[in-house]
Amino acid sequence: MTATKNALYAQSGGVTAVINASACGVIETARAHPDRIGKVYAGRNGIIGALTEDLIDTGSESAEEIALLRSTPSGAFGSCRYKLKSVDANRREYERLIEVFRAHDIGYFFYNGGGDSADTCFKVSQLSESMGFPIQAIHVPKTVDNDLPITDCCPGFGSVAKYVAVSALEASFDVRSMAKTSTKVFVLEVMGRHAGWIAAAGGLIEDHGIPVVVLFPEVPFDQQKFIARVDALVQQHGYCTVVVSEGCHHPDGTFLAEQGSKDAFGHAQLGGAAPVVAGMVKQALGHKFHWAVADYLQRAARHIASKTDVQQAYELGAAAVRLALDGHNAVMPTIDRTSDEPYVYRIGMAKLADVANVEKFMPRDFITADGFRITEACKRYLRPLIRGEDYPAYRDGMPVFATLANNAVARRLPAFELR
Amino acid sequence: MTATKNALYAQSGGVTAVINASACGVIETARAHPDRIGKVYAGRNGIIGALTEDLIDTGSESAEEIALLRSTPSGAFGSCRYKLKSVDANRREYERLIEVFRAHDIGYFFYNGGGDSADTCFKVSQLSESMGFPIQAIHVPKTVDNDLPITDCCPGFGSVAKYVAVSALEASFDVRSMAKTSTKVFVLEVMGRHAGWIAAAGGLIEDHGIPVVVLFPEVPFDQQKFIARVDALVQQHGYCTVVVSEGCHHPDGTFLAEQGSKDAFGHAQLGGAAPVVAGMVKQALGHKFHWAVADYLQRAARHIASKTDVQQAYELGAAAVRLALDGHNAVMPTIDRTSDEPYVYRIGMAKLADVANVEKFMPRDFITADGFRITEACKRYLRPLIRGEDYPAYRDGMPVFATLANNAVARRLPAFELR
Repeated sequence: MTATKNALYAQSGGVTAVINASACGVIETARAHPDRIGKVYAGRNGIIGALTEDLIDTGSESAEEIALLRSTPSGAFGSCRYKLKSVDANRREYERLIEVFRAHDIGYFFYNGGGDSADTCFKVSQLSESMGFPIQAIHVPKTVDNDLPITDCCPGFGSVAKYVAVSALEASFDVRSMAKTSTKVFVLEVMGRHAGWIAAAGGLIEDHGIPVVVLFPEVPFDQQKFIARVDALVQQHGYCTVVVSEGCHHPDGTFLAEQGSKDAFGHAQLGGAAPVVAGMVKQALGHKFHWAVADYLQRAARHIASKTDVQQAYELGAAAVRLALDGHNAVMPTIDRTSDEPYVYRIGMAKLADVANVEKFMPRDFITADGFRITEACKRYLRPLIRGEDYPAYRDGMPVFATLANNAVARRLPAFELR
Repeated sequence: MTATKNALYAQSGGVTAVINASACGVIETARAHPDRIGKVYAGRNGIIGALTEDLIDTGSESAEEIALLRSTPSGAFGSCRYKLKSVDANRREYERLIEVFRAHDIGYFFYNGGGDSADTCFKVSQLSESMGFPIQAIHVPKTVDNDLPITDCCPGFGSVAKYVAVSALEASFDVRSMAKTSTKVFVLEVMGRHAGWIAAAGGLIEDHGIPVVVLFPEVPFDQQKFIARVDALVQQHGYCTVVVSEGCHHPDGTFLAEQGSKDAFGHAQLGGAAPVVAGMVKQALGHKFHWAVADYLQRAARHIASKTDVQQAYELGAAAVRLALDGHNAVMPTIDRTSDEPYVYRIGMAKLADVANVEKFMPRDFITADGFRITEACKRYLRPLIRGEDYPAYRDGMPVFATLANNAVARRLPAFELR
């Protein structure tokens, strides 16, 4: 007979259109096992809530509200960009986590995030051995950047990919209508600091007859070749669309546009590559242009989420709980694809030691030799990930999203100051 | 017994998510009256196609393809920004139009556009009297800017309003999740050169608990008051969202951001108010920010079109044909609202003489006294316009849009050079 332990769920890093679907999968699956999992707590604003003992009791939310998380974008419990240092460098924080876990009888830790967070989750998973406290830490993958290793894809990516492909197609139809006397080049800037997965989704519109140039972070920007490519497409089609990754950079490594500020992980905060690229086209070719920067709109766009993505986000949340119940620690459930068409995948498992701090870039054979398009192999990869629609309910023209009560759990420990 | 005449339909100015729904209404209704209307031609790239005798025979499109126009964004026949001068200033162009009308037995002219186009349509409507050629010219309203007079609203607006309201809500949920340690202010730039209707739609998210500041073109920008407002909201809620119209300007009339180039109508081409506003916040308050510029994405976003808007776009196209069959000239069908809730409207009729070159701004009582929010009266106006969803069909994750054959009608006249 196994003892009942409480669980702590926390969201980390940039949120997505479907991270709450994973939360829904975790909570609903945990609720189905009351013999093993007692309370499901959530960290308010992610790991910060765990450190400051600012816990949310998800048990006070109705089944209906929890179900509504599946169609609610953003992080319902708050997220944060806060990276734990190594145990040696900041033993104080890990000791505090153990205190909080112990005070609230937490035996399961579900951390929902990307690469940096997988590293944090891995460190927490090692507390059993390094600090003698029994905890099972399971990472639930989440990142629009799709740059986690081992898993075939990451929840959050399919929906942003669908948003980018659909939006780029719609805007391209617009430009095609106007090109005779007006805008000839439309530039859409999308996310993706180091990996070009999101930009690649823009390349899918080629199959709908749209002349498109994709600028990947994996391909150093060659201004002369780029202008020549745009010139050729506009001459042939009368217009073209450019999808540029925010991480697109010059051969010397400097980004096309940096805003100068850095986030808590020390990454440069990007934005503004689109106007830079549009300006280059205007100067070299004289074409009238328009540009858009999708920014948060793309990763929050639950209204056009991919059904595949929503389903996988939920399944991976549920799978994380099952892995914990099966006794695993320091692991992450994964999407293991076995067939492109028909699309078949199964839920697998990766060791966090193999996941943490590894970034998965676009394979070179997903980008055409000229560096401006995606290959058929890439399209085969992307198509199933954007397939299917999963619309939220609407009331009075607006989507119905969950806003949880997020009731606090009574504190049992002295305050803790973040440094 | 009335003689059968052919019809010419042309799209003008910036296209929208639903202008093709109006085209669908025109063509399907005309097809239902073969005793009165023979061929329906379309101008390739709008009025330029009429002038250069570059006509499209819509009769070669199947009923299925025409029906698909209802869910296809952009201008299926091409649009243009080309404003006809007065008859006195450019008699040559009007004489050419009459030659083309006569050569192709065109008795009905349906022009689908905004304020500038209503002016052109009005001039064409006067050809009967001024140049002795019998033509019935009917304007079909279309503009995302919602700035035409008399009609309660303009097709295209409801869908962009829905896009802006939904996108701003989603992104605000995102910011709310992240605000504890990351982004505290999100700035979304939307269209609207002189009228703040589109920005106003962003104000609807207030009813969903979001602290939002709207910057209208109708309210001269007051930087000090704006910063104070953002400061207060962030202190109270931890974050806030700013929706800024591209037409927002300083008290001296200069726009917050101008790109320096002008369109064919002589209007300054705008873009980049969002980064300017975000920079102000950063400098004054130090908050981490994100910004997005929706640009064409907003007006092309058929995937999140308003059902009310799609329906009205179709109805006004159909009504234009009925007005022509009833013998009218120089008129425009309108939306006449008789009740907010339940929303009731009927199709009315306005004289083009009263429509051309009149811009409808936001009434002062739609904007709160502080200039940063919308009033309950404005919300009552907006709510029915964004109500209902009208999703396109999808195949393999991507929307199914019409791409017409656009077969050319054989030319009967010598070439004509645009000057």
